[in-house]
Amino acid sequence: MFQTQRAAARSGSTTRFMEQAVRREGVSLEVLRTGLAEGAIALPANRNHACLEGRAVGRGLTTKINVNLGVSRDCACLDVEWAKADLSVRMGADAIMDLSSHGKTAPFRKRLIQELPLPIGTVPVYDILGFTELPLEKLTAEHFLAVLERHAEDGVDFVTLHVGANRRMLERLKKHPRTTQVVSRGGSLMMAWMQATGRENPYHEHFDRVLDICAAFDVTLSLGDAMRPGSTADATDGCQIAELIELGDLTKEAWKREVQVIIEGPGHMALNEIQANVLLEKKLCHGAPFYVLGPLVTDVAPGYDHITAAIGGAVAGAAGADFLCYVTPAEHLCLPDIGDVREGLVASRIAAHAADLAKGIPGARNWDDAMSRARQTLDWEAMFSLALDPEKPRSYRERSRPTEEDTCTMCGDLCAMRTMNRVLDAEPVAG
Amino acid sequence: MFQTQRAAARSGSTTRFMEQAVRREGVSLEVLRTGLAEGAIALPANRNHACLEGRAVGRGLTTKINVNLGVSRDCACLDVEWAKADLSVRMGADAIMDLSSHGKTAPFRKRLIQELPLPIGTVPVYDILGFTELPLEKLTAEHFLAVLERHAEDGVDFVTLHVGANRRMLERLKKHPRTTQVVSRGGSLMMAWMQATGRENPYHEHFDRVLDICAAFDVTLSLGDAMRPGSTADATDGCQIAELIELGDLTKEAWKREVQVIIEGPGHMALNEIQANVLLEKKLCHGAPFYVLGPLVTDVAPGYDHITAAIGGAVAGAAGADFLCYVTPAEHLCLPDIGDVREGLVASRIAAHAADLAKGIPGARNWDDAMSRARQTLDWEAMFSLALDPEKPRSYRERSRPTEEDTCTMCGDLCAMRTMNRVLDAEPVAG
Repeated sequence: MFQTQRAAARSGSTTRFMEQAVRREGVSLEVLRTGLAEGAIALPANRNHACLEGRAVGRGLTTKINVNLGVSRDCACLDVEWAKADLSVRMGADAIMDLSSHGKTAPFRKRLIQELPLPIGTVPVYDILGFTELPLEKLTAEHFLAVLERHAEDGVDFVTLHVGANRRMLERLKKHPRTTQVVSRGGSLMMAWMQATGRENPYHEHFDRVLDICAAFDVTLSLGDAMRPGSTADATDGCQIAELIELGDLTKEAWKREVQVIIEGPGHMALNEIQANVLLEKKLCHGAPFYVLGPLVTDVAPGYDHITAAIGGAVAGAAGADFLCYVTPAEHLCLPDIGDVREGLVASRIAAHAADLAKGIPGARNWDDAMSRARQTLDWEAMFSLALDPEKPRSYRERSRPTEEDTCTMCGDLCAMRTMNRVLDAEPVAG
Repeated sequence: MFQTQRAAARSGSTTRFMEQAVRREGVSLEVLRTGLAEGAIALPANRNHACLEGRAVGRGLTTKINVNLGVSRDCACLDVEWAKADLSVRMGADAIMDLSSHGKTAPFRKRLIQELPLPIGTVPVYDILGFTELPLEKLTAEHFLAVLERHAEDGVDFVTLHVGANRRMLERLKKHPRTTQVVSRGGSLMMAWMQATGRENPYHEHFDRVLDICAAFDVTLSLGDAMRPGSTADATDGCQIAELIELGDLTKEAWKREVQVIIEGPGHMALNEIQANVLLEKKLCHGAPFYVLGPLVTDVAPGYDHITAAIGGAVAGAAGADFLCYVTPAEHLCLPDIGDVREGLVASRIAAHAADLAKGIPGARNWDDAMSRARQTLDWEAMFSLALDPEKPRSYRERSRPTEEDTCTMCGDLCAMRTMNRVLDAEPVAG
């Protein structure tokens, strides 16, 4: 009988996905399996994702990063999105979310699942209008469940569902307005449907059926945060934390049915609130992996939100967040192009690795130490090959060649590395 | 009789520089003057910098940023460096350091001081070979003092001197090798001179004369950290902290002579060590302003060190660091071009503002809140004009125009802002 990775771990079994995940990390199978069994680790692995190589996210593991891509109404070129996926795999993404929100999205989704070994995630409600060809107000609960089931059958490894965006949250929002209300696309869609139909969020009302579908295919439930702050002003407010409590309650229900859970988090948030927010997630959601979008530590830098998010992501990761959703320079402005994807991906990998260094993930320091040794010996080729992105530093050096090969054009003959190598190799001069 | 800003503050006087500095901040004159008198604030203001508009750095003030520029042997075009200075002023730098290290540097330095209202800093020893036209081993202590005096007379507001890089430090370094030894250009030069001549660091040996010069012109002493870690491996080691203790002792001597002091700091440092390092500086150096280069929170991202430094700078600032030295994408690779200067400057301003939000600097939040209100009302022109860099977001939107003007090409008709404005303006639908 089919078992989810959680069920397998709880029954003491070892799956090939667990073995693959362990090979990627510096931890033992036992550590992975215990984390999976307790819910502190998730291993998204849809039974229909044939070419998947298992990657786990959660307690004690390296911080993972996700790349969002997919077509929108105004940017509908599938080739461009495929090029982004290809780049993401080459540059070290750990997961890809297909956020396509226009037209018939199944062929692109199926291609990602057929060809890529990374966990693939989606937000099924982004697809619901194209899938049903109905206007929002004509949708019924059955449609919401049907689109989820279709994504599950297609082999999607993790889905964002805004289960916490229920009527209670909508009422709370009306009583307690926020600076930027709701900035979650999926969350606002659930709110609009509830407002138009007067009904309860179908994923909330029929959570049992959601869990049936997820358990049948081992789709990991990424519980979306419809109330994530879209401004630093709204961070850590009653709406956000009330929803987080709901997500914690839902987590327990999902675990009872052997469904794996990830919790999504902020958003925009000043630096001094991040650590408390990670603690809150870990406490209120019983140690489930935390998947953050940002946090963006200021609102004022559109065009540079890969940087505002790298600051927040590194701090969140160091405090215990497990999974970072990348943010590109195009955030708040437009769909990213492939250059933006590259910038966002690199910034996010920097944040994840900085977090791993800070939390002492086994092996993280070796990479930095190898780079530092290459610097001390002025071994430029080693520096390039060890660089997170070898291409950019190489092109910088090509652009600006020094007179003396062992220096660079910043310091020239004042190179501190070279000077000190000479000072420390020399015999002391008598005073 | 001429008084330094510190002496004036201690005698209860108000200078025009203090008045100008207060107008830039949300604090009272009393707060500024108390900070200056206690040494927790510095107001670099050389008596020969005629066009200076006072800007203070330290306790309770906004986090400031510095831009480095200047020619090197391999990049000697003064027009390019002047364009960088011009850009820095326009884009909100708080100070400029002229790190020119080749040829006769006086004309460029004098032009900066004559034309720019920002505090101008230098590292006099970078200039010593060009100034004296002598090889290093022929230099005497008098030469080191002469080049400092020349910079002071020229009107330089703050100077980096590696006074802590003394013979004790050199001996320590020989006994306790580090992964990247010494990465400070000025520090390594002092070490090389000590090694070649067998003598003590002249700025250390003749610290009284250094203070005479600084007091005569009110040059703020920026005590350089020759032992700053050049790799995360070397962070918070005995060399670094031993030097910090020396800098604290020197601070007290300088203050006795009414000389203002800033302390320079790391460097490369994992995220989890930054807060402790800020605490150490504040304790060991008696509350003197802390001026950090980075810290870069990982060693593995050459080409993106504006991001690794923004992460560390934001965290350091939030923990109490007062002054961030910008880092550009060219760090570790070559002299930055003007595009790199722009990227570095923006990243550094993001870090400084994120820190100000976190530490609750009066007024910092207003900017973010104005941006968030512009987002909620989909007022694109307001978003651009409020942006830290208006040009880049505007060009992104031009590049990728949406079908409907009030949305963007990322979300299109799924725009959460627009959807929620409709939901929350509507009358509740009966259930």
